[in-house]
Amino acid sequence: MTAHSLTQIPAQQLPVTSPLEDLSLLLAADMRSVNEVIMARMVSEVPMIPQLAGYLIAAGGKRMRPLMTLACAKLFVDEIGRAYGLAAAVEFIHTATLLHDDVVDESDQRRGQASANEIFGNQASVLVGDFLFSRAFELMVEGGSLEVLRILSRASAIIAEGEVLQLSLQNSLSTTLAQYERVIAAKTAALFAAACMVGPVIMGQGDELCRALYQYGHHVGMAFQIADDVLDYDSTTSDLGKSIGDDFKEGKITAPVIFAYQSAQENNDVEALDFWRKTIERREFEDASDLPHAHDLMVKSGALNHTMELAQDHVRRARAALDICPPSNLKSILLDLAEFSVSRRK
Amino acid sequence: MTAHSLTQIPAQQLPVTSPLEDLSLLLAADMRSVNEVIMARMVSEVPMIPQLAGYLIAAGGKRMRPLMTLACAKLFVDEIGRAYGLAAAVEFIHTATLLHDDVVDESDQRRGQASANEIFGNQASVLVGDFLFSRAFELMVEGGSLEVLRILSRASAIIAEGEVLQLSLQNSLSTTLAQYERVIAAKTAALFAAACMVGPVIMGQGDELCRALYQYGHHVGMAFQIADDVLDYDSTTSDLGKSIGDDFKEGKITAPVIFAYQSAQENNDVEALDFWRKTIERREFEDASDLPHAHDLMVKSGALNHTMELAQDHVRRARAALDICPPSNLKSILLDLAEFSVSRRK
Repeated sequence: MTAHSLTQIPAQQLPVTSPLEDLSLLLAADMRSVNEVIMARMVSEVPMIPQLAGYLIAAGGKRMRPLMTLACAKLFVDEIGRAYGLAAAVEFIHTATLLHDDVVDESDQRRGQASANEIFGNQASVLVGDFLFSRAFELMVEGGSLEVLRILSRASAIIAEGEVLQLSLQNSLSTTLAQYERVIAAKTAALFAAACMVGPVIMGQGDELCRALYQYGHHVGMAFQIADDVLDYDSTTSDLGKSIGDDFKEGKITAPVIFAYQSAQENNDVEALDFWRKTIERREFEDASDLPHAHDLMVKSGALNHTMELAQDHVRRARAALDICPPSNLKSILLDLAEFSVSRRK
Repeated sequence: MTAHSLTQIPAQQLPVTSPLEDLSLLLAADMRSVNEVIMARMVSEVPMIPQLAGYLIAAGGKRMRPLMTLACAKLFVDEIGRAYGLAAAVEFIHTATLLHDDVVDESDQRRGQASANEIFGNQASVLVGDFLFSRAFELMVEGGSLEVLRILSRASAIIAEGEVLQLSLQNSLSTTLAQYERVIAAKTAALFAAACMVGPVIMGQGDELCRALYQYGHHVGMAFQIADDVLDYDSTTSDLGKSIGDDFKEGKITAPVIFAYQSAQENNDVEALDFWRKTIERREFEDASDLPHAHDLMVKSGALNHTMELAQDHVRRARAALDICPPSNLKSILLDLAEFSVSRRK
C-alpha cells in the first residue's frame, strides 16, 4: 500500500456515504437528543463558556465518539435513551482534551479554522476545558452508573498520562515503537475504547460483550491515530483541517518518524540521520523544503507504508472484536467504520 | 480594624498553635492515612507526573481542605476511614486547580518557591492538572457515593466557571462587589463548601447537618479568599509564600480595588481615578512605587478596612453555621479555624 491509498472517496462516486455518515443517518433521532443535551449543558451564566465551547463543539466536529457510544448501545437494545447523557459526556471529555491539547501544542489551527486558544487565549482554553470536563462528570453522575463513572474516570486519567508521556518523549529519536504505541493507546485509543464500552455497560450487557466493544474501540482508536500521524506528513493533503507538519515542527515522535529513522540507521544513511537529528531532535529548520524532504525520506524508506500496515493491523483487530455480535445493519456499519478510521478525513 | 491586625502570632507566644495545627494534631492518625492515599495515587509509570505533582503536593501545603473534610466527618462519627479517599480527592482537585491557575496567571511563585509551571513548563502543568483531576474522580468512584460525586463534580464545574468569570472581568474597573463575590464564591468557596459537606454526607448524616457544614465551608472559603486578596497588597508581608502584587500587575479586580476605586469616585479624586485606570485597566506601570502607592490609596480610603470587615462578616456567618453541632473539642477548633482563615498565613 502506498500513501496514495489514503485518498478520499472521489466525489463522482456519490451518493456513496462514509460509515460515519451512515451512522449519523441511522442514529439521527438519538443523536438529535444527544445534541440537545450537549447544547443544554454547555450553558453557563458566564458568556465566555458557551462562546468558546460552542466554537469548538459546533466547529464541524463529526461527533465520532458519541456516535460510537450510541451505536455500541444500540447493538443490543433499540431504546437507548439512557445513553444520551453518556454520549454527551464523551463528547465533552473529547472537547476538553482538544482544548488542552491545543494549549499544549501551541496549535493555531483545529478542524481547518483558527484554534480556540488562538481566538480566546490559552487561559480561557484551559479553564473552559476544565469546565467541560467537570460537566462531563456531572452528566455521568446523573446517569447513575458507578461502573460508567469508573470506566470514564480511568480513561481520563490514562489520557492525561499519555499526553504527559508524549511530552516527555518529544524530540527524542530513541523513542521505541512500543513507547509510541503506549502513548497513542493512552492519549487517543483509551477514550474510543471507553466510549464504546459504556454503551453496552449502561444497557446492562454482560462482561464478555462489554470487553469486546472495549477492544473494538481501542483498535479503532489506534488505527485512527496512526493514520492521523501519517496525514501530518502527507503534504498533498489540503482538506485535513489541521496544520500539516505540526508534529514535525514540534519534534513529536510518531510511527513515520520512528520507521524512517530506523531505516536510516539500518542503511547507515548519514545524510538522513543528520536530517532527523537536526529537525526532530534540535528543531533546527532550514526552510520550507524541510517538510517535503521529511515526507520524501518517509516514502523512499517505506516508513509511510510500514505505518499504514500497522494501522491496517488494528483495523483487522477492531473488526475481529465484533465477531461476538450477531449480524445487523449496525454491525456492518461499525465494521466499515474500522476501515474508514484510516482513510482521509477532516 | 487596620491592616496591621492581620499580623501573624509572634514567635514569643509559642507554644500557642494555630487552629490548623490543632486540627493536624487531633487528626494526625487519620491524616497519615490520607497522605498514604495521596502518595499511592500520585504514582504513575510516567515519571514526570509524580515529580510534578509531588513538587506541589509536598511543597508546604497545609492540607487545609482535606483536614476540613476529615474534621466535618469526625464531628459525628469517630471512625472515619470512609472519608480518607474523599479527603485525598479534595486535595487532588485543589492541586489541579492550583496547577491550572498558575498557568492562567502566568505565576512564577507558589507557596514561596518557584511555581510548577516555571520549572516543568505550562504544558506539563496543564496535563498533570488534568491527571490529578481524573484521579480525584477515580478516588470518588471507589468511595461509591453518587451523592459525593454529585457534590464534587458540581463544585468542580463551578470553580472553572468562577475562574472564567474572573478572567472576563480582569482589568474592568466597572466590576461590582456582587460580581467579585460571585467570582470568589465560585473559584474558592465552592471547594471549601464541598470539602466540608462531603464529610457528613459520607457518614450518612441528615440533610440539615450537611447543609450547615456546606454553609460553614462556604463562609470560611469566602473569608479566606477575601483576606488573601488583602494580602496581595500588603507590601510589608514577606512570608506570604506568593508574589506580592500579582493581582495588581494582572489587573485582577478584588475587593480592595473595588472599594478604593469607589472611594475615589465618591470623592472625585482625579489623581486616584487616573492611577487606577492607568494601572488596573491599562496595565501601564511607571516603576516600583506603583504597588506601594496602590497600598497607600487603599489604606487612606479605608478600602483595606472595608475589605477586612467583609471578611469578618463571613467569619461570623461561618461560626454561626456550626450552631447546629453539639459542643466538642473539634467544634471549638473549627470555630477558631474560621477566625484563622483571615489571619496571615503561608
